[in-house]
Amino acid sequence: MNLTHLDENNKPKMVDVSNKDDTLREATASGVIRVSKEAFKAVIENSAKKGPVLQTAVIASIQGAKQTSNLIPMCHPLMLTSIKVDIKELPEIFAFKLFVTAKLKGKTGVEMEALTGVSIGLLTIYDMLKAIDKSMVIENIQLEKKTGGKSGDFKRQN
Amino acid sequence: MNLTHLDENNKPKMVDVSNKDDTLREATASGVIRVSKEAFKAVIENSAKKGPVLQTAVIASIQGAKQTSNLIPMCHPLMLTSIKVDIKELPEIFAFKLFVTAKLKGKTGVEMEALTGVSIGLLTIYDMLKAIDKSMVIENIQLEKKTGGKSGDFKRQN
Amino acid sequence: MNLTHLDENNKPKMVDVSNKDDTLREATASGVIRVSKEAFKAVIENSAKKGPVLQTAVIASIQGAKQTSNLIPMCHPLMLTSIKVDIKELPEIFAFKLFVTAKLKGKTGVEMEALTGVSIGLLTIYDMLKAIDKSMVIENIQLEKKTGGKSGDFKRQN
Amino acid sequence: MNLTHLDENNKPKMVDVSNKDDTLREATASGVIRVSKEAFKAVIENSAKKGPVLQTAVIASIQGAKQTSNLIPMCHPLMLTSIKVDIKELPEIFAFKLFVTAKLKGKTGVEMEALTGVSIGLLTIYDMLKAIDKSMVIENIQLEKKTGGKSGDFKRQN
Amino acid sequence: MNLTHLDENNKPKMVDVSNKDDTLREATASGVIRVSKEAFKAVIENSAKKGPVLQTAVIASIQGAKQTSNLIPMCHPLMLTSIKVDIKELPEIFAFKLFVTAKLKGKTGVEMEALTGVSIGLLTIYDMLKAIDKSMVIENIQLEKKTGGKSGDFKRQN
Amino acid sequence: MNLTHLDENNKPKMVDVSNKDDTLREATASGVIRVSKEAFKAVIENSAKKGPVLQTAVIASIQGAKQTSNLIPMCHPLMLTSIKVDIKELPEIFAFKLFVTAKLKGKTGVEMEALTGVSIGLLTIYDMLKAIDKSMVIENIQLEKKTGGKSGDFKRQN
Repeated sequence: MNLTHLDENNKPKMVDVSNKDDTLREATASGVIRVSKEAFKAVIENSAKKGPVLQTAVIASIQGAKQTSNLIPMCHPLMLTSIKVDIKELPEIFAFKLFVTAKLKGKTGVEMEALTGVSIGLLTIYDMLKAIDKSMVIENIQLEKKTGGKSGDFKRQN
Repeated sequence: MNLTHLDENNKPKMVDVSNKDDTLREATASGVIRVSKEAFKAVIENSAKKGPVLQTAVIASIQGAKQTSNLIPMCHPLMLTSIKVDIKELPEIFAFKLFVTAKLKGKTGVEMEALTGVSIGLLTIYDMLKAIDKSMVIENIQLEKKTGGKSGDFKRQN
Repeated sequence: MNLTHLDENNKPKMVDVSNKDDTLREATASGVIRVSKEAFKAVIENSAKKGPVLQTAVIASIQGAKQTSNLIPMCHPLMLTSIKVDIKELPEIFAFKLFVTAKLKGKTGVEMEALTGVSIGLLTIYDMLKAIDKSMVIENIQLEKKTGGKSGDFKRQN
Repeated sequence: MNLTHLDENNKPKMVDVSNKDDTLREATASGVIRVSKEAFKAVIENSAKKGPVLQTAVIASIQGAKQTSNLIPMCHPLMLTSIKVDIKELPEIFAFKLFVTAKLKGKTGVEMEALTGVSIGLLTIYDMLKAIDKSMVIENIQLEKKTGGKSGDFKRQN
Repeated sequence: MNLTHLDENNKPKMVDVSNKDDTLREATASGVIRVSKEAFKAVIENSAKKGPVLQTAVIASIQGAKQTSNLIPMCHPLMLTSIKVDIKELPEIFAFKLFVTAKLKGKTGVEMEALTGVSIGLLTIYDMLKAIDKSMVIENIQLEKKTGGKSGDFKRQN
Repeated sequence: MNLTHLDENNKPKMVDVSNKDDTLREATASGVIRVSKEAFKAVIENSAKKGPVLQTAVIASIQGAKQTSNLIPMCHPLMLTSIKVDIKELPEIFAFKLFVTAKLKGKTGVEMEALTGVSIGLLTIYDMLKAIDKSMVIENIQLEKKTGGKSGDFKRQN
């Protein structure tokens, strides 16, 4: 039971990765926003509107992922080498599922970058739709998979 | 069906609030992170460790709420006059529920600030515990209530 | 000949606007990016691509305008109440003309916010097209008009 | 004995100033950096070099003061209406004394903005001179005076 | 005709450079601001004032170049290893020409950093002079040369 | 007498480290805040309060160290690989002494990161205690030691 972000006096610290190797690391995270039928249709049924709503979320995800070390106190500053965002429409439940994949050749993993990107992207969809529906819920923000690094690979079991 | 963040040519815009009154506005949002039993106990059973883990999340929430207009593209820069964070332990489901209440005397609401604060706080808990458990899930990020402003009050029905 | 940003010892300072009134201020700036015929067509002739290229620029303009006081050393932090971006296609000269209008109810003007938004938007178009053409030129970044404030209105003579 | 930044459960919070009046508030802080004789002379005896070294510090002070609420976790975002920096040469002790005066018409004081501006300005002088002298010491960062606001005026007794 | 910043579904993405080599990359960009005769003389004829005006622009250029990946949505975060700014006075046309050279040992080029530095530096000169002249025009922001990287060198033909 | 941050025309520049090797670099800085007896006791005598006050300072130090290149104009952006903060209570003089150790495998030293972390941490303690005591003084911000890099090691003589 290893709280790696606490030092021997239980003070927060940034973990020392100085001597880790630069290896290729990749992480994919996802999350869902459930909206009202009305809000879902406002986006989906009008292709002229769908573009800007969902692309604003894509751009916010990418920009948000780059801000991870400024937002999450113990995260290391990282030079992400790739960020890719996908948004899947889930019409049967009036929801959008957003995926972010981040990559890095570096000393520490990029899970937090992928998860932060997902969170900011979903909050942006909330913001774009909140004049129609304030009861939307963001859910299931989770790591999907992770490769590279000493702690081993991770793949979510569904 | 009003996508207020798109202009007449369906381009994103920041809504014009220049002529709205400065009134007291308040919003509370919440969200949950579900963790493994092992991760939950690592935090809860050791009061020397619980402090720094949860307080790091509180501070990240407050700092994150202040970054909202830098993160969510169409949000207005705002001068928040109060941010308060609470974290409730949910031992029966091995989860933490985080609440953020933001206030402002200004021209537009603070829902996004409360929701962003919740998201960043939960991501910080994820980060502090991810060496123990990578399968944690963040869920139910939602607006609880909102008062002030022309669009009327909102209170979530549960 | 008034260098308002230098103090009595010729050191840079932020001008004191503490006692100015909060009035409605608005400014519009514009600028142009000239690109190759090939780059222009890559954007314009494919409506599936035009959307994301130009909307990325719109979003970057809005986000950039909000960063003005962090970028331009003597600028005051301001709470912009409206930012609107337009992009006009100039097919006869293979160029895009980008306009930003910023508004504020406050103590100082928003010219720098409009001009910064224009600059960041045009740089974003450059970035999106630079794999096709590196010789693009950004030109004619200028204030179009300005209203509100004690120094009087401004309207560019063409 | 009032730790205003802790709530009833001893969690950090941003103090609620929602209902405070907008009044004119002003604060002046100062601090000193002591350098080697050699480093002091490198700056002072060459007027072509003194300008850029000290002006870089002035600009960093102003930019730093504007970042206060991003750096100090419980500080409110504020719209500073004036920032003025002075640097006094203290040749008898090979030191520079830097003063920052910040102003605001708002709901809370600007001591932290003045103190943060001083700190960043002095760190910038350190950075500019560190190739000559690594043993420099920054000292006596302190509030000089403060006016406005309910808690009353403050003037340092020397 | 390669819009590298759009993915297969025409959504913006950050290009994947994970597997590119770390090589020395360098880019120089330039741009011009044309001002009124009166504004030009206010800066040039008084050496006590020329220093702080132009040095504020130099510092803003350097600081702005470091913000590139926060401002231009698809830009990678980069660890610039050198930024150098020059300003040439063009008295015959009452203008200033600003050059920024950026360097990096890394996986992707630094054109956008050089161009962003130029833009922010010119906007800063505009800000410092706008009390004298609001009709100033920023023009000819362009890449001068670029070396390093797989896409080959670039040198502007004049 | 080497002002490395000025170029041949005495303009500020970011030093060119493009061709320096990536080596392990480490720096420790410290600083002190002297507070009133009353303020010191408010923190120390109540363990429920000591935690959040000092941990907020720890977190602010870590976050502040990561902002160094945004705050100190000529600093290079760096990917810190470790940040560790300690706070020593000095009851005999009613003071707190804060230490920051930063590490990097890179091309330039991390003294400024350690010193900036110290400064921001001490300012945060000031902020947390200023309702009790406004006359607190921050002093002795200094480099303790530094290893790695071509300029040789440094260890403060006391």
